[in-house]
Amino acid sequence: MVNGNMTLHTDKYQINMMYAHWVNGTQNDKAVFDVYFRRLPFGNGYAVFAGLERIVDYIRSLSFGDEEIAYLAEQEEHYEPAFLDELRRFRFTARMDAVPEGTIVFPNEPLVRVEGRIFETQLIETAVLNFMNYQTLIATKASRIKGVAGDDVLLEFGTRRAQEADAAVWGARAAYIAGFHATSNMLAGMRFGISTKGTHAHAWVQGHDTESEAFDRYAAALPDQVTLLVDTYDTLASGVPNAIRTAKKLEAKGKRMNAIRLDSGDLAFLSKRAREMLDEAGLPYVKIVASNDLDETLIFNLKAQGARIDTWGVGTQLITGGSEPALGGVYKLVAREKDGAYVPVIKISGNPEKVTTPGLKDVYRIVNRQTGKAEADYVALHEEEDVRVGKRIKLFDPVHPYLHKYVEGYEARPLLRPVFEGGELVGDLPTLDEIRAYHAEQLKLFWPEYLRKLNPETYPVDLSEAAWELKMNLLHRYTKQL
Amino acid sequence: MVNGNMTLHTDKYQINMMYAHWVNGTQNDKAVFDVYFRRLPFGNGYAVFAGLERIVDYIRSLSFGDEEIAYLAEQEEHYEPAFLDELRRFRFTARMDAVPEGTIVFPNEPLVRVEGRIFETQLIETAVLNFMNYQTLIATKASRIKGVAGDDVLLEFGTRRAQEADAAVWGARAAYIAGFHATSNMLAGMRFGISTKGTHAHAWVQGHDTESEAFDRYAAALPDQVTLLVDTYDTLASGVPNAIRTAKKLEAKGKRMNAIRLDSGDLAFLSKRAREMLDEAGLPYVKIVASNDLDETLIFNLKAQGARIDTWGVGTQLITGGSEPALGGVYKLVAREKDGAYVPVIKISGNPEKVTTPGLKDVYRIVNRQTGKAEADYVALHEEEDVRVGKRIKLFDPVHPYLHKYVEGYEARPLLRPVFEGGELVGDLPTLDEIRAYHAEQLKLFWPEYLRKLNPETYPVDLSEAAWELKMNLLHRYTKQL
Repeated sequence: MVNGNMTLHTDKYQINMMYAHWVNGTQNDKAVFDVYFRRLPFGNGYAVFAGLERIVDYIRSLSFGDEEIAYLAEQEEHYEPAFLDELRRFRFTARMDAVPEGTIVFPNEPLVRVEGRIFETQLIETAVLNFMNYQTLIATKASRIKGVAGDDVLLEFGTRRAQEADAAVWGARAAYIAGFHATSNMLAGMRFGISTKGTHAHAWVQGHDTESEAFDRYAAALPDQVTLLVDTYDTLASGVPNAIRTAKKLEAKGKRMNAIRLDSGDLAFLSKRAREMLDEAGLPYVKIVASNDLDETLIFNLKAQGARIDTWGVGTQLITGGSEPALGGVYKLVAREKDGAYVPVIKISGNPEKVTTPGLKDVYRIVNRQTGKAEADYVALHEEEDVRVGKRIKLFDPVHPYLHKYVEGYEARPLLRPVFEGGELVGDLPTLDEIRAYHAEQLKLFWPEYLRKLNPETYPVDLSEAAWELKMNLLHRYTKQL
Repeated sequence: MVNGNMTLHTDKYQINMMYAHWVNGTQNDKAVFDVYFRRLPFGNGYAVFAGLERIVDYIRSLSFGDEEIAYLAEQEEHYEPAFLDELRRFRFTARMDAVPEGTIVFPNEPLVRVEGRIFETQLIETAVLNFMNYQTLIATKASRIKGVAGDDVLLEFGTRRAQEADAAVWGARAAYIAGFHATSNMLAGMRFGISTKGTHAHAWVQGHDTESEAFDRYAAALPDQVTLLVDTYDTLASGVPNAIRTAKKLEAKGKRMNAIRLDSGDLAFLSKRAREMLDEAGLPYVKIVASNDLDETLIFNLKAQGARIDTWGVGTQLITGGSEPALGGVYKLVAREKDGAYVPVIKISGNPEKVTTPGLKDVYRIVNRQTGKAEADYVALHEEEDVRVGKRIKLFDPVHPYLHKYVEGYEARPLLRPVFEGGELVGDLPTLDEIRAYHAEQLKLFWPEYLRKLNPETYPVDLSEAAWELKMNLLHRYTKQL
């Protein structure tokens, strides 16, 4: 992981816009940005918000040091020296609200809201998206895998196939939030306190004259955590019988072998046969760990075929997101200061889903007090009172507004919580285990049809009537001008 | 990017194996590992090797510090204190050979070869793969894009969708090696000396009362590098006409606008129409930049449709690898020291392509002296002399050995070059621009049928007869024992 100052981990256009604002004297004007995504990855019914702690650490460390200033001065000669002095004095003084990490979230609702000087709020766009997009993607993938694995143990094994070191380490964190039990990455273990797991590679077996010798020597060195990889030569003809012999020798010393690990071949067949062999040998306590390009679909199918696998090691498909390696989170201006007050702004697009929702907004999770289940998320303008005090509100589909209903007697849980105020961190961030426990609780808030892996129901994210009308008014005002 | 010591950026099983070797007294036995991949990504005919400088920096910084030792002592109580002392003294003393960065490479040939104490060579497996897999994947993807873009300008724009910060920064480097011209990431610019590019976001336009005012103010601030994003409200009805007005005002000040940027909609249609509008306005010098989830297929098709795009900004699909977000590089033991000499070792698998090729080996690129083109890569045992001195050799398909031919009068270029000897770096690494130039030269060595994007010919990677016989002998010896 690249060491040092991350302040220039940003796109050049942010610095150019900061410069242009500075030249125009608008750098202190306030702006409000919403961070959200438009589409759920993996065909999933929800996403798991993650990456906030990373964002917080980044923001707290922002500072243009000598190296950064020297680079800008040399490479960007058109920047006036007084602008570089302004950068030298740069300090984050803005406000940020965000949903807590581990929250179940949906498209088109603000997950992070940033409010402050355009000079600061523009700089952080790139890194905020980079961090949120990745950890949210991986937590969501991990949640899908957790959803099919039930109570089985899940190990994150992806480091060698991760997209560089940060992805390995932060991906391990995101997987843990969504319910994984451990990682193979020692650095992630050290930094985040996540349990680490690992046994030996094929090289250990190849490094001895016989597989049997390799197993015995490994067991002698680490007698209390023996998991033996059994597919170096032939799983059923050699690996499992040799592992059984080693397990018996361990028993003679009063120790119990932990597991065998299958890493190739037909995992359904091999695990069932290996289970029988272990049971016949009087080793019902020896678990079976499986790995080999697993994902939620393979695990689901292996379980359906009666595979006897206790622990799943998941690598590439988890740590990269597999078929969908990016969450398309965006950071959009929704209001700007003009003459001392906020003016809502819009971005229009030929693609209707890309039109932004203007204004300073809040998001509420509307929970039915009878069932205790979430009914919809409700995006309202900040000044709206009705939802905050529990008055009757209209829920309607923003694309097909005739689909509507009225609700009352609900509980409205605000999703956005203050993170920074005046540039200062508000309170303590939760621990990683608190985030993980909160995520597990969150899942209970939703009907299973929103959580299923295949063709989930679409959970409603509705705009308040006032937010919808503001959007329509701005849209019509701009399109009429054209 | 996570700061600090990366020595624990490894899988736990490496540390466990190091411990088990230490307990068994075999930690100083020498071992030889080959790093290679088995399958090309993206259906491409070749890959572009990258990541070596990152590997070198990592290896030179390896050191178990107080924090690492304290973590291991606390978390892994079964490790004996004397083992932790051994880690404290850890120093990389091994030999490493590798193909130079930017080399065109193929499946099943050693790209990195590590030779040294098992205690060291085992530790580095995970990080070496993590670094090589990612940069090689991205350089290969970038090379595909370069292959269709011809002389157009290519910009790497992926940071916000990259898999965390390291991927953004190292991915920008890999793209540059394969022929990209610039990146939007300022940190990559500062670290690697890559040109940076960027203009303004939609937020700049939304942050002003009118698009026209936004354009004029941007142009006033940065008059020598004006690229205007024209799709905030309506590309043809508003964006392009406003950009033209700004360009005319710049002309009145003796300045020339650089470009307009299209970021949504039908890029073929919009670019053609925008080109006409610019030309009609007497602005033939204003270029057109396009972005919006581009990849090599889209660029190829846009060009086939006559799109008038001069510069391509490529983000998500490049920086993540798109549909294939991981290269499956592996690190396999091929020989080990026994009684003072190397013994070749094999790993067998039910999947024939996963059987390893034993022995300490070299790789040669067999170049036809008449045509100057590469005919095959030839993997031979280290002790073989014939290929080194240019004697007649037999090239045959390792899967279907009856397909063969004899070649002589060739030039055999060794691909593996010394990187570390006795733990010391051998010579200086090439600069990034040297690597980029070397890569461009490399492409000329291959017939176009190996380089084409769709259904390329399979370039032969052959084993010498001796290497093939060794593999077959070991394979039969082990399978007979079962």
